[in-house]
Amino acid sequence: MEYGAVSLQKLIEHFQRMPGIGAKTAQRMAFYILSLPPEQAHAFADAVTDASDNIRRCAVCCNLTDKEICPICADKKRSRQTVCVVENVESLMAVEKTNEYTGTYHVLHGVISPLDEVGPDDITVRELLARIAADDVKEVIMATGSNVEGELTAMYISKLLKPLNVKVTRLAYGLPVGSDLQYADAVTLLRALQGRQEL
Amino acid sequence: MEYGAVSLQKLIEHFQRMPGIGAKTAQRMAFYILSLPPEQAHAFADAVTDASDNIRRCAVCCNLTDKEICPICADKKRSRQTVCVVENVESLMAVEKTNEYTGTYHVLHGVISPLDEVGPDDITVRELLARIAADDVKEVIMATGSNVEGELTAMYISKLLKPLNVKVTRLAYGLPVGSDLQYADAVTLLRALQGRQEL
Repeated sequence: MEYGAVSLQKLIEHFQRMPGIGAKTAQRMAFYILSLPPEQAHAFADAVTDASDNIRRCAVCCNLTDKEICPICADKKRSRQTVCVVENVESLMAVEKTNEYTGTYHVLHGVISPLDEVGPDDITVRELLARIAADDVKEVIMATGSNVEGELTAMYISKLLKPLNVKVTRLAYGLPVGSDLQYADAVTLLRALQGRQEL
Repeated sequence: MEYGAVSLQKLIEHFQRMPGIGAKTAQRMAFYILSLPPEQAHAFADAVTDASDNIRRCAVCCNLTDKEICPICADKKRSRQTVCVVENVESLMAVEKTNEYTGTYHVLHGVISPLDEVGPDDITVRELLARIAADDVKEVIMATGSNVEGELTAMYISKLLKPLNVKVTRLAYGLPVGSDLQYADAVTLLRALQGRQEL
């Protein structure tokens, strides 16, 4: 429907294509853009094109970066001998937020999922294997999700790495911190029991 | 925090400034932009700048448009003698969606709100008064919200219009269609009673 401005309708449509954005939110976002001073709207548009044009994968770990090597891999204080394998950049950000991890990462950009026809060659498994020898990696921490695809990917990669004499570890399963026992699902509780530790 | 790409962080920050968009949603939107083919990301950025640069107020009704006169005012089939006064373009869109209104609009771009220091001169009251004589307006429908500011604005404008020999009407109050009587608030129910009509 055309109420007034074609360019407004177009902008609303663009916002509406985003994941999780419905008609009302898209409309609100478009009006927010209109409410901005022109230079701020232009800065926003530039941020979109900059990100789209300049972001590529780090030559080492496949993290998204606007340089050849991402800041984490470029940081001399971070160990290249410990590699945390994550599904995507969102997961990398989540691990970074712990402020405790001092190794480097490897971003798979996906998980192995036979149902979606995603195989090992569709994610960055080959790049990971290339690093193992090159960087003399001692430990690979499999930090893929604890769902079926995440498990499958972790299993597959650990089988590839074992013959290369690399220690492969997996994130611990258990109760989320601050959670109530009565709301924990049976599988998580079982894993927490199995993984119990002495106090 | 800097995980990899400065331009990605910037883009996330831009999205996060939008109303109702939190950190997680902003991140998801930024990754959506990165997932787009470059030409689509550029099209999105262009839509933002186009909207910001080209959208202005219709010379007649103050609706947002990219032309001198908005399509509703330009439409010869729509009566300029009936003017529906709305707070903003969102309200105009809502009335248009009824598909029944054949008059024109006047967009106030705000409501009178002494608490927020918004007076009649900050909204398009002057432009509305100018139209009354110019277009020989017969009826003005006050379609501002049914909250305190909306009521105040409707009252204020109707007082200005009465001496000009214009019929001023207000949207009906009552139960929303499809609602349950037990969940209606007392004030709405009182208004519905007062406005009861013969069957």
